[in-house]
Amino acid sequence: MNGKNIKALVFDVFGTVVDWRTSIARQAEEFGSKHGVEANWDQFADDWRDGYHSGMIKVNSGEDKWKIVDEIHRDRLELLLEKYEFPALEEDEIAYFNKSWHRLEGWPDSTAGLNRLKSKFIVASLSNGNVSLLTNMAKFANLPWDAVLSAELAGKYKTHPWAYQRTAQLLGLEPEEVMLVAAHNGDLRGAINAGLHAALVTRPKEFGNSKKPDLEPEPDFAFFAKDFHDLADQLGCE
Amino acid sequence: MNGKNIKALVFDVFGTVVDWRTSIARQAEEFGSKHGVEANWDQFADDWRDGYHSGMIKVNSGEDKWKIVDEIHRDRLELLLEKYEFPALEEDEIAYFNKSWHRLEGWPDSTAGLNRLKSKFIVASLSNGNVSLLTNMAKFANLPWDAVLSAELAGKYKTHPWAYQRTAQLLGLEPEEVMLVAAHNGDLRGAINAGLHAALVTRPKEFGNSKKPDLEPEPDFAFFAKDFHDLADQLGCE
Repeated sequence: MNGKNIKALVFDVFGTVVDWRTSIARQAEEFGSKHGVEANWDQFADDWRDGYHSGMIKVNSGEDKWKIVDEIHRDRLELLLEKYEFPALEEDEIAYFNKSWHRLEGWPDSTAGLNRLKSKFIVASLSNGNVSLLTNMAKFANLPWDAVLSAELAGKYKTHPWAYQRTAQLLGLEPEEVMLVAAHNGDLRGAINAGLHAALVTRPKEFGNSKKPDLEPEPDFAFFAKDFHDLADQLGCE
Repeated sequence: MNGKNIKALVFDVFGTVVDWRTSIARQAEEFGSKHGVEANWDQFADDWRDGYHSGMIKVNSGEDKWKIVDEIHRDRLELLLEKYEFPALEEDEIAYFNKSWHRLEGWPDSTAGLNRLKSKFIVASLSNGNVSLLTNMAKFANLPWDAVLSAELAGKYKTHPWAYQRTAQLLGLEPEEVMLVAAHNGDLRGAINAGLHAALVTRPKEFGNSKKPDLEPEPDFAFFAKDFHDLADQLGCE
């Protein structure tokens, strides 16, 4: 029916399934307000997110030993608390705020769309976020994963091929039986390089006005959809 | 409220959550019937299960390299197909039958009880079964795991302490924030040795009349319940 014998859909999460920027900006504003700090909180969210990318590059290159994303977020947060001139804070408060990334809201179609896709395919996360982050987020945002899979279980971050291939292995599938669903062409290119199929779902609001989203598929992407319902329609899900 | 700061319940699966013996005997009978083989299929199920234990011991001792449970089941199945005098079979048929263990029915209280427990705790599998087996089983038996965790992610089978401790680590929790729920005192002893709490849920029908079930808790088990609803009641779940 999909013509490709796809048995599992695996999902990029930050940006594709959840609206990290709005959720982080909102929590940061609350946190700042509590501690008497004013700032552009959208910018704060972007600043925090930038640390995620550079932290992962250091791990995949071998410059840093393996660190889960909670630790990468914490490293960056320490710098941001100084940069944004927060007062001295209790460890418990910092730890709770660092877990703002466990408390991200889904896009409006995420839960219902995943439930439709789940009726016909295995649906699993394939995020660089660590398993506990993804597990807590799934409870918070009501994401009905069949399995919570993560680059943590590969010991390599996307877009390293092993992050994708390990996920297929854990699902007992060949790479070509798995399709990555993501809002980011670079991630989808990584999946194709690892032997998976690729579906671009656009999330035009992910970055606000700070950065251009990917809105056009590359020629070898198998599917191109405007949200999870559109993808479910194209895949023949009820 | 539970007096122990427990944040996650992790579950033994074979016997505790699903009725493997009835489910395997039924599928084996169908398979035998198709191929003109008659046998005591309860005995066949027990024979197959025995290979699981001996296969894991060889892995944990280092005698065998790491093998997932699907492979351990397959090793045993090859012997049983001879012993029970099956005719020559196609590879696809053997592979499908080997995955009978992915198609096990839950006990009558499993789905509803897990949903109640899930309202208050993270609920995750902690089985020796591989991730793909557990993921497929969860879809088949409607098991609403927050996360599908497995000894496969530790590279050691229970009752090795790392199987339990790795699960706590992946959940971002200390061992004492996690409780194993199981129908088997040996598994619960392994959990306590690894720093987790233990809850015995009895499954008197697990072995039919072939083997005595564990029906009495040991003194340091934190909870003792007759099914998942009873456990949910004791833990104050709605």
